[in-house]
Amino acid sequence: MSLTDYIRTIPDYPKKGVQFRDITTLLHNPEGLKAAVNQLVEQYKDLKIDRIAVIESRGFLLGAPLAYCLDAGLVLIRKKGKLPCETLEESYDLEYGTSTIEVHTDAIMPGDRILLVDDLIATGGTAEAAIKLIRKCGGEVVECAFLVNLPELKGDKLLEKLGCSTFALCAFDGE
Amino acid sequence: MSLTDYIRTIPDYPKKGVQFRDITTLLHNPEGLKAAVNQLVEQYKDLKIDRIAVIESRGFLLGAPLAYCLDAGLVLIRKKGKLPCETLEESYDLEYGTSTIEVHTDAIMPGDRILLVDDLIATGGTAEAAIKLIRKCGGEVVECAFLVNLPELKGDKLLEKLGCSTFALCAFDGE
Repeated sequence: MSLTDYIRTIPDYPKKGVQFRDITTLLHNPEGLKAAVNQLVEQYKDLKIDRIAVIESRGFLLGAPLAYCLDAGLVLIRKKGKLPCETLEESYDLEYGTSTIEVHTDAIMPGDRILLVDDLIATGGTAEAAIKLIRKCGGEVVECAFLVNLPELKGDKLLEKLGCSTFALCAFDGE
Repeated sequence: MSLTDYIRTIPDYPKKGVQFRDITTLLHNPEGLKAAVNQLVEQYKDLKIDRIAVIESRGFLLGAPLAYCLDAGLVLIRKKGKLPCETLEESYDLEYGTSTIEVHTDAIMPGDRILLVDDLIATGGTAEAAIKLIRKCGGEVVECAFLVNLPELKGDKLLEKLGCSTFALCAFDGE
């Protein structure tokens, strides 16, 4: 069974014309969760990753088991106002307005080899902000890993321009 | 090293008089993350858990590796408006106002043995709402597991009244 078979597509969500890729059905299935995490472990087990940076909140769901398996620590990248200590922040544009993400200033040491993990890459705006944040702290972004890529939205090309390669376990083209 | 040693205490956060227990320092440390997850695995490996219900968003960080290790699936309990399919919801009181959490209606089957996981239990309001939600779907709450218990806030007693036992990896008493 391919990973895409575990993912549910919801037409016209959150608005007309959008095919929403719902990963909750993959996570709900013990085989789906296991296969996704194991494929990420296989990809990164020899790359000496110090920490997995996980983007709130769906990125937590794959990044945390991956960190556990790789004996790496977790760096939380959260929406503004959620982290209790001193933070660095980075803003990015949304369709309407902007959003800001933060990281604890002491969560990344200069030279740390960081793998960025989120559930899905679309236009890549959040991942771009996260990369900038990790680099501000002196971390090296080894790669950006996602469960799902939506290549027609060219997020992977955006990250490439920043000098980051994208790895995704599966992809959906538009219909 | 005890798990409490990995947790940072932030005085007067988010307001004066509160000692905030910051688990990001435990998650950041590969040994801390490993030890916490392994202790939960040890506790639940023989209890035939079908699914781990994880409460957004810090509950995702321990519940997801635990589900991976136990070959269980994940059930996401999220704040209202975040889940894309049909949901059931439950509201609960906060210090000021109320909050509502949701679960996908198809995420729990009648008779499923569910372990509820969150990072911390204080007054137990969120966990109480989550238990009600799981039971509405026909699920059986085997136990509620937390990284941290704050026993002086009596959340564990509240859950006991609902017929749920609480397990916590560590506890902090008030200072």
